Amino acid sequence: MSVESEVMKMAKAAKAASKELACCSTEQKNRALYAIADRLFKDADYIKKENSRDLAFAKEKGLSDAMIDRLKINDSTIKAMAEGLKYVAGLEDPVGQLSQSWKRPNGLEISKMCIPLGVIGIIYESRPNVTIDAAGLCLKAGNSVVLRGGSEAMNSNIALSVCISHGLKEAGLPPDAASVIPVRDREAVTCLLEQEEFIDLIIPRGGEGLIRFVVKNSSIPVLKHYKGVCHVYVDEGADFDMAEKICINAKVQRPGVCNSMETMLVHKSAAREFIPMIFEKFVSDKVVLKGCEKTCQISAIAEPATEDDWYAEYLDLVLAVKIVESMDEAIEHMAKYGSSHTEVIVTRDYARARQFVRDVDSSAVLVNASTRFNDGGELGLGAEIGISTSKLHAFGPMGIKELTTSKFVVFGNGQVR
Amino acid sequence: MSVESEVMKMAKAAKAASKELACCSTEQKNRALYAIADRLFKDADYIKKENSRDLAFAKEKGLSDAMIDRLKINDSTIKAMAEGLKYVAGLEDPVGQLSQSWKRPNGLEISKMCIPLGVIGIIYESRPNVTIDAAGLCLKAGNSVVLRGGSEAMNSNIALSVCISHGLKEAGLPPDAASVIPVRDREAVTCLLEQEEFIDLIIPRGGEGLIRFVVKNSSIPVLKHYKGVCHVYVDEGADFDMAEKICINAKVQRPGVCNSMETMLVHKSAAREFIPMIFEKFVSDKVVLKGCEKTCQISAIAEPATEDDWYAEYLDLVLAVKIVESMDEAIEHMAKYGSSHTEVIVTRDYARARQFVRDVDSSAVLVNASTRFNDGGELGLGAEIGISTSKLHAFGPMGIKELTTSKFVVFGNGQVR
Repeated sequence: MSVESEVMKMAKAAKAASKELACCSTEQKNRALYAIADRLFKDADYIKKENSRDLAFAKEKGLSDAMIDRLKINDSTIKAMAEGLKYVAGLEDPVGQLSQSWKRPNGLEISKMCIPLGVIGIIYESRPNVTIDAAGLCLKAGNSVVLRGGSEAMNSNIALSVCISHGLKEAGLPPDAASVIPVRDREAVTCLLEQEEFIDLIIPRGGEGLIRFVVKNSSIPVLKHYKGVCHVYVDEGADFDMAEKICINAKVQRPGVCNSMETMLVHKSAAREFIPMIFEKFVSDKVVLKGCEKTCQISAIAEPATEDDWYAEYLDLVLAVKIVESMDEAIEHMAKYGSSHTEVIVTRDYARARQFVRDVDSSAVLVNASTRFNDGGELGLGAEIGISTSKLHAFGPMGIKELTTSKFVVFGNGQVR
Repeated sequence: MSVESEVMKMAKAAKAASKELACCSTEQKNRALYAIADRLFKDADYIKKENSRDLAFAKEKGLSDAMIDRLKINDSTIKAMAEGLKYVAGLEDPVGQLSQSWKRPNGLEISKMCIPLGVIGIIYESRPNVTIDAAGLCLKAGNSVVLRGGSEAMNSNIALSVCISHGLKEAGLPPDAASVIPVRDREAVTCLLEQEEFIDLIIPRGGEGLIRFVVKNSSIPVLKHYKGVCHVYVDEGADFDMAEKICINAKVQRPGVCNSMETMLVHKSAAREFIPMIFEKFVSDKVVLKGCEKTCQISAIAEPATEDDWYAEYLDLVLAVKIVESMDEAIEHMAKYGSSHTEVIVTRDYARARQFVRDVDSSAVLVNASTRFNDGGELGLGAEIGISTSKLHAFGPMGIKELTTSKFVVFGNGQVR
């Protein structure tokens, strides 16, 4: 069978399964999630054996230790995946809920009812746990899922998908509701992106190159997140202890993630006192500092920043620092160089806090808290499937609710126009 | 200037204007809508003169009378456009509203705040009133809009956009917030669809060919509506008088629109009595009937339907009729041949009404009411900019709220992770 017809067959089967899934009960979906979790433990040896084939191949190909580490499945990875599934089972099921109801003058009673999207295609790189995490969340929201992981994790992903199929069957749900495309060739991705008839949404998870490729080639709507160039603005008159705590946390606690701070903006009247104070901390945390001209005048620790630094998503212990004349300049800087992801103001001023929240056009705007809170779990959405930095359908962390849509339901007694 | 750089310049200017628009008050936006409405009356002669150039060109090109009629702007068209703008000014402004708020255990207070999408690109055919209607709705929701109408209405659309710019200026808003691309070449559409950096959403309005072209060529998210193949299912034991009233209304009241009925499904136990009774009415309303084999056995009035008839969006006084064994068969038929637009059940049975509403996967599912109610105005959303039959962002009629999104707003007092 050609790659194209194989992918189409899977997408078509997923669509058929999605119709069954859309009508099944919360209990049935939760039973499937628990059954999959059980399967992970029962089939642990098989999963680890398949994973070791991927690891051997990765070593042969000379992949970096960091990449090999991300690929590895051990008992604790398996436990984490199983616990993730049980956590998702505990989340509220949005499907079938009525979000609004109203009555028209002609007597029609109208509601908006939450329904699954249908079939979600997930294209991801490296970590095989995404296979389980993404499938669990999609299934709980009543969607089928077609997964296409990185070719370096192919055997692991297929083993995990076997567990999912068994779990679905045990709960009396169609096993086609979740599948992994077992094709290494990149052609499989292109084919997947053409299944507009059967797939309702594509979520790419990976580097900017992968995401741009998906957007360019997809006829299916894409929910995407290019990068996180997050800012903290330390306002005139800010509480410096609070600002320091927030900036250190935003930069240092986990520098490799999208909601860490990449650029710190400091009001000119705060700079002379605050910058030497926080730079000392940054240096003791091994953060490399790149400063604007004025910053470098205040502290010799920073090396001069170039224009590229303001756009950079370092994902590392590197920070760009700029002194601004006003909050307006800070907001303009964020709009020009940022990625609409997460911006923070540290301030004591009520009016500026309000203006910042209104004027900053990012998926999360925070006052006096770390950028690291722009995360589905931290915001209280439960598990998340990614963070959208484009505005359609979802802007910011996407939880289970963002994997659904709603239809209009109308009850009448013979009304006509 | 090349088409590409001209389109990019307009998109970029629209983006800059959108930042101003996002922060302006409801009063200012309403003032602009009123100013544009005034301009339409003041510049009526200029608009009609430009329109007459389009009409002359259309006649020269030999366009059909129906198309020329749709192109024509007269005093009553102008009045209707102006009244539309005032109606939109009266709609509630969603921007800045908080839809949900909650508090996290760590004390963070979180809200979702409604914000404009940014810049909306509208690609449409024929009727020049769309220029005003679409611009009004986008502006009220705080968005800039870049419009690209049909080349046959180019002079009319430019004249209308001059009125919009003047109105915006009079209200102190940036005139770049709304513009018409003054290029006849189809290259302008392709260029518009590549302005991912500046445009947040594309809404195509027109025939299926145009919409498929847009989806195929756009890197920007598209809200689309391919077609409306709407069904009415007349259930076993339905009130035949009600069923007749609803079916006649759904087919005859305005057959050329997307929410009119294209296929009627009748339960076998209702067929022998209901079909002859309603066919008599259909015939007196000049509806051409195409029936399944069983339908043709009951009534000689219907000609045999082919497989293509079940997929057809006639937009005319033609109706396909099928007798089904059960409601499940009716639902399967809708899923296979329908377009996820609008489906109706006429029934007296409580359990089947509930099941129909749950199981039918369309943007509007109605019990005992005409398909013609799937419309923004009729559902109570105010003016609509189109009806989405895909599930991302909006499913069904798109009102002013669907031209916005929301961001997370977080208030803390020094929280870190």
